[in-house]
Amino acid sequence: MMFGAGRTIRHRVLLPLCGSRGMSSDGTGTVVPRKEVVDFVVRCMEAVGTKRPNALAIAEVLAEADYRGHYSHGLNRLEMYIHDLKMNICDANVQPSILKETAATAYVDGNNGLGPVVGNFCMDLAIKKAKEAGVGWVIAKGSNHYGIAGWYSIQAMQQGLIGMSMTNTSPLVAPTRAKKAALGTNPLTVAAPAKDGDSFLLDMATSAVAVGKIEMQKRKEEPIPKGWAIGPGGQMTTDPQTALMGALMPLGGAELHSGYKGYGLGLMVELFCGILAGGSYGPNVRKWMSTAEEANLGQCFVALNPECFAPGYHDRLQDLMNFIRKMEPTEPHKPVLIAGDPEKIRMKENDDRGGIQYHPNQMKACAKWAQDLKVSPPKTIA
Amino acid sequence: MMFGAGRTIRHRVLLPLCGSRGMSSDGTGTVVPRKEVVDFVVRCMEAVGTKRPNALAIAEVLAEADYRGHYSHGLNRLEMYIHDLKMNICDANVQPSILKETAATAYVDGNNGLGPVVGNFCMDLAIKKAKEAGVGWVIAKGSNHYGIAGWYSIQAMQQGLIGMSMTNTSPLVAPTRAKKAALGTNPLTVAAPAKDGDSFLLDMATSAVAVGKIEMQKRKEEPIPKGWAIGPGGQMTTDPQTALMGALMPLGGAELHSGYKGYGLGLMVELFCGILAGGSYGPNVRKWMSTAEEANLGQCFVALNPECFAPGYHDRLQDLMNFIRKMEPTEPHKPVLIAGDPEKIRMKENDDRGGIQYHPNQMKACAKWAQDLKVSPPKTIA
Repeated sequence: MMFGAGRTIRHRVLLPLCGSRGMSSDGTGTVVPRKEVVDFVVRCMEAVGTKRPNALAIAEVLAEADYRGHYSHGLNRLEMYIHDLKMNICDANVQPSILKETAATAYVDGNNGLGPVVGNFCMDLAIKKAKEAGVGWVIAKGSNHYGIAGWYSIQAMQQGLIGMSMTNTSPLVAPTRAKKAALGTNPLTVAAPAKDGDSFLLDMATSAVAVGKIEMQKRKEEPIPKGWAIGPGGQMTTDPQTALMGALMPLGGAELHSGYKGYGLGLMVELFCGILAGGSYGPNVRKWMSTAEEANLGQCFVALNPECFAPGYHDRLQDLMNFIRKMEPTEPHKPVLIAGDPEKIRMKENDDRGGIQYHPNQMKACAKWAQDLKVSPPKTIA
Repeated sequence: MMFGAGRTIRHRVLLPLCGSRGMSSDGTGTVVPRKEVVDFVVRCMEAVGTKRPNALAIAEVLAEADYRGHYSHGLNRLEMYIHDLKMNICDANVQPSILKETAATAYVDGNNGLGPVVGNFCMDLAIKKAKEAGVGWVIAKGSNHYGIAGWYSIQAMQQGLIGMSMTNTSPLVAPTRAKKAALGTNPLTVAAPAKDGDSFLLDMATSAVAVGKIEMQKRKEEPIPKGWAIGPGGQMTTDPQTALMGALMPLGGAELHSGYKGYGLGLMVELFCGILAGGSYGPNVRKWMSTAEEANLGQCFVALNPECFAPGYHDRLQDLMNFIRKMEPTEPHKPVLIAGDPEKIRMKENDDRGGIQYHPNQMKACAKWAQDLKVSPPKTIA
């Protein structure tokens, strides 16, 4: 198989619209009820020919991302999905099909459908199998960008199961010692229910940081820490502009800091995604935002039933999380957190104000899309 | 549940015997055929009352660790296993029992047996289930230190499956923002067969580095990089002695470098081990090397059958590994590697010289144990 030339992060477009928390610098912003975010995305997706159930699938993932404070993966990404459909490089209305099945596994063809349509189908199947056989392990080829990985692990968690998901992505991360990128930021997520609605929710890229963090430093004209990225020559850099022409480093950073572990995790995600799925993999995944070819992403969905193991699972998980949260912090104003706690804080803030707070620039972009697509813009409450 | 006081890495004994490659500083050492390493461990274990099959189980894991160049987990650990048996805190001859089963899962009680006896039992079960149901997911409580995690994933790989394993360990790692340790180095391993005996073999602690690396810096009287460890006050330190009184940092290091991802991975391993198993977990796992109570470790073993997914799996994995290995390295003399490649180099070296090369101090220690236990010491060939 021939690979294209090494892709670097310079191909990624800058996040144009929002800061790290989607608000303007003075902390204010426009508030949109979550349901209205969903409805607005549905209107836009329907306007480009998506039937309602599939439009709703993508709308719910985007609204959830913004609701959790992951603004880069919410309304900010709507334009990309619309563009894919306009370019006819993704099929809005197709359903996935099962190619192979055992008691605990399924191999699915996403048929080049919308990522969330493929993802929901696969996770529903994994959940069904986990309830019957203890574990469900579903892998799909022919998928597209599926939004926040955590959306899928949460589906399993809401059924009392432990959920996991992984996806490969466009190559942006350089293997340890390599000059160029060959793997995506390849995220993995694990969601586990504890007591009374509490949970452990890990949702992480296997790169040291996301490209967005480097873009933020560039905008602020501040250096990036060593270990985030390399320049085009393969050397670690502290200059964000040089980094954006180079590649991300894996979790851990330099070899001395065990960056080869993050690189190994990225390759593990690729194994469970593109390699097992028979989709695109590694350096031959299409460039970020490209519509020159189908994405053919590989994705992995796992559900595990804790009832198959020791009784008292919820008590133990809650006990450990409580212990860790109560540990003495090194800096008194920075409490020790469990994965998913920052998102819980964001969700509470959104609930208290009756909707999701957006940066004015995001609202301007939505207004423009609404005009272009001849749909009504999001209704705001503040 | 009450937790004991926070444990820190100062409780861990210094690795007394070997450098990072088990050889003396001039690169020479004593060579012991691999089979003789196995036989020597069997003699020692039998001398403290272990019946042959169980003695062999532990001997094979220790010999494999040394053969792969992981000297800390080979003969260097024999004394600890012997001590556990002499103190009657681990049962040399017990067999594990299955407490619960589904098509794809099993919950096992290790019955406080030797770690490798429990581990082999569980991975055999996971392999059997993966062949029948596509995936086998086995979790054990009541286990003990099981040697290199990679031993178990390799067993599945040798059957054409993808193997995974995780174990919890004594608390040495501080959660991000916390002053003290609450999690172990909690390793995870994934082994996947490629073509013609080639493979991807990830076997990594979820901490930034192992304690041994800090001990080496102390011996050399050199500082440690920022991001490896914190001192007793919770602050990052570059002084190895201060670090040894503090705690390890998770993979990634500081929060700015996404250390919370490594911490999240460590907690994920604990979820699949102590929490689901109903064994000891987090800060209540007994201190490293303590024999004051049973270890009651939780361990997780997973096997996945690639035949359940896309045809051509081996070709794709090999293709990706070949592509990455041929990437241009940043430093010409440091080729880009795949997880498991450093071990392949060590194994080839050992094969070429007809045995495993040991530091003279390791041989002295073996001679002393042989004398104490009234067995013959390892026969050397150089």
